[in-house]
Amino acid sequence: MAKHDWRRYEPLDLSPILTHALDAFYEQGFHGTAVRDIARRVGVTVPALYYYYENKEAILVTLLETATNDVAWRAFTAAEEGGDAPETRFANVIEAIVLHMTHRVRLASLDSELRYLQPANRKHYAVTRKKIENLLTGIINDGVRTGTFTVTDPAETSRALLGMCQAIATWYHDSGPLRPEKLAERYVDIASKTVGLA
Amino acid sequence: MAKHDWRRYEPLDLSPILTHALDAFYEQGFHGTAVRDIARRVGVTVPALYYYYENKEAILVTLLETATNDVAWRAFTAAEEGGDAPETRFANVIEAIVLHMTHRVRLASLDSELRYLQPANRKHYAVTRKKIENLLTGIINDGVRTGTFTVTDPAETSRALLGMCQAIATWYHDSGPLRPEKLAERYVDIASKTVGLA
Repeated sequence: MAKHDWRRYEPLDLSPILTHALDAFYEQGFHGTAVRDIARRVGVTVPALYYYYENKEAILVTLLETATNDVAWRAFTAAEEGGDAPETRFANVIEAIVLHMTHRVRLASLDSELRYLQPANRKHYAVTRKKIENLLTGIINDGVRTGTFTVTDPAETSRALLGMCQAIATWYHDSGPLRPEKLAERYVDIASKTVGLA
Repeated sequence: MAKHDWRRYEPLDLSPILTHALDAFYEQGFHGTAVRDIARRVGVTVPALYYYYENKEAILVTLLETATNDVAWRAFTAAEEGGDAPETRFANVIEAIVLHMTHRVRLASLDSELRYLQPANRKHYAVTRKKIENLLTGIINDGVRTGTFTVTDPAETSRALLGMCQAIATWYHDSGPLRPEKLAERYVDIASKTVGLA
């Protein structure tokens, strides 16, 4: 049942191929990484690697799906745990997303490689991302309806907040002094202001 | 004197090599673009291209400097035009940055290629980016000092807002229906809330 604690992060449980591919993509970028680089890191031959994945893009797709599934279940569980209060649901979702961007910064930073994928491969990822955006927009709309939130354009605020959280993956380092929980707290404070909570 | 109107965008005045390199990087990514792709688009030989640029990275560096210089002069001019009022300076800077992210989306989206540069080549870019961040943080601090703004952590709010604006370049399409001026207006509204302005 550990999966249901959205605040808890265990080390990523990835296969050796995915683990080494993630390191390579993080350090050299997707286009800067050759399949033979990944094979060398894993300690297998290139044909052995092709036995598991059709090509390099298939590895990236698997990693992106891992990333988006991780942030999605956490965000939805966090929202549910917030019960009926839009302000708690809102704060929980922002906290969950920032915790993902920091604890899973290597996975989260793959997002910038997304636009080089084939359209068909982008689809699952885009659908899950849209669900998270709709979740946040829905919560903001609820808060506006109940008079708790003051927002000019809920959909735009939702997209702006998700962009703000996604940008963390471009500068956050897991070796730095800033703890994920501390950053999440600051972002919940900033985000709360955008919906009119002091 | 057109350069001093920070709201005005002329078509980018780039050399043929930079123009075609920018298109190639935007469509295929930096790592996905070979020097011969750029030479073919320009209609010159690869050696002719090397006469102007030492390598592909030197082209990216030039484009990144063009991008960061463009956003920097606009942001600083916008701030100056805001006079002494922190709320006007703040709104102008956010507007200037969003206008850059949209009108110059191809240049702005190169930001995601930054981390693959040699450290020495990243320096100029990082220094200019830091100046913009300091500009915004300074304005927020001024607003807090004068009692106009309410902010828990000015530096974090500044970084979060710049991330929010930078993220626009990941989804904005210059062929889409959303006008830069309209989006800038929405972002000024959202950003204003983060500093406690209604």
